[in-house]
Amino acid sequence: MPALHIIPIEGIGEVRPDDRLGPMIINAAAAQDTPLMDHDCLVVTQKIVSKAENRLVPLDHADFTARAEIIDSESVRVLRRRGDLVISETRHGFICANAGIDLSNVDSGFAALLPVDSDRSAHRIRNSVRAEVGVDVGVVVSDTFGRPWRHGLTDVAIGVAGIAAVVDLRGGTDDRGQALRVTEVALADEIAAAAELVMGKAAGIPVAIVRGLEASWFRDGSVRELIRPAQDDLFR
Amino acid sequence: MPALHIIPIEGIGEVRPDDRLGPMIINAAAAQDTPLMDHDCLVVTQKIVSKAENRLVPLDHADFTARAEIIDSESVRVLRRRGDLVISETRHGFICANAGIDLSNVDSGFAALLPVDSDRSAHRIRNSVRAEVGVDVGVVVSDTFGRPWRHGLTDVAIGVAGIAAVVDLRGGTDDRGQALRVTEVALADEIAAAAELVMGKAAGIPVAIVRGLEASWFRDGSVRELIRPAQDDLFR
Repeated sequence: MPALHIIPIEGIGEVRPDDRLGPMIINAAAAQDTPLMDHDCLVVTQKIVSKAENRLVPLDHADFTARAEIIDSESVRVLRRRGDLVISETRHGFICANAGIDLSNVDSGFAALLPVDSDRSAHRIRNSVRAEVGVDVGVVVSDTFGRPWRHGLTDVAIGVAGIAAVVDLRGGTDDRGQALRVTEVALADEIAAAAELVMGKAAGIPVAIVRGLEASWFRDGSVRELIRPAQDDLFR
Repeated sequence: MPALHIIPIEGIGEVRPDDRLGPMIINAAAAQDTPLMDHDCLVVTQKIVSKAENRLVPLDHADFTARAEIIDSESVRVLRRRGDLVISETRHGFICANAGIDLSNVDSGFAALLPVDSDRSAHRIRNSVRAEVGVDVGVVVSDTFGRPWRHGLTDVAIGVAGIAAVVDLRGGTDDRGQALRVTEVALADEIAAAAELVMGKAAGIPVAIVRGLEASWFRDGSVRELIRPAQDDLFR
């Protein structure tokens, strides 16, 4: 079985509203001698997607009332509050802290909201790569979320194009020929987590290539596969 | 910044009680021309660790009463029950389904319990590699857990040796010079998730090498870093 390679893409530079991320990624990858290939999966951080899509809003970071108002307006339901921390559900169905609003790595006086439709953001990058260089890639838009019970943040998928979000092995057999019960793997979340290992918060690397994934995982996908229906969820 | 490589180790073969995993991994890695190197991180699935440590117990898979009794005996606290599904806290502090008891990939008539002390399991492999071939590796013992809110399973760390479980970037600055607020990254969980991308449930690959991680992340670590204190947790 071949190895998997996770290749950081450097030199993307500062992203501004209405920048086209596809060409920026293509050029930066080519400039470092790792041109994109079929069945690569690009992982692109939410931050540059939100910037390119002009999802920055003015916010005085010290104004906690204004901050709370933005969080409320970006939430459809609040699960828990403690002090300044709000755990809420976004319009996309994500449950996360502060509605995914990002204050770091943004110009002082601004906050970055989540993309309106992050699957569409991923599709836009995928389509751009196909149109510009004729290469068929998967795209995962990633963000950094906390989790209950476990300390520390991990990167997860908030948008997906051209690759499965969940790989459903239900009904397969394990290596002893026994039926496997529960084998729906959150592929896009694991890809996002893997990419984070080369991106790092402070290193200014907003994109990575994950190269060597199973060819059969590249299909139409949506981040909606990763949202657990409320009636199946014991922790709301 | 260099790429990260995730290399599956094939040919480990069937693991039996009292097998020494360190030499088995060393030999299988050497046999496929990827001998272990300093600052490699080995990811080893719980299943072979539990087998080597003789954590198999007899269980008729159709006997739901016996199954429930084992889950109870492996749990310190039950958070939720629905039908056959129990979400409970193990002695290690992990919150997971069915106390982490594993029925797949185990001989029919048996179940695999979690290692008693999975940090110690990781240390044993790390020490063995150092003693046999003089190479300094990190070790993550991984298992497959569900999560609230998000559909699909991901691999997480249940034991750690020689590498940080959480990388604490608190107090650093981002690439715009602003103070970062929340930047404790669940490194060992992201490593486990990355490794799962080459292991796959049905492929019979129980170990992977993650090569190219930051040298500074290799230090004394413990899976206890990943357990969120109950008083900080809004979802118990």
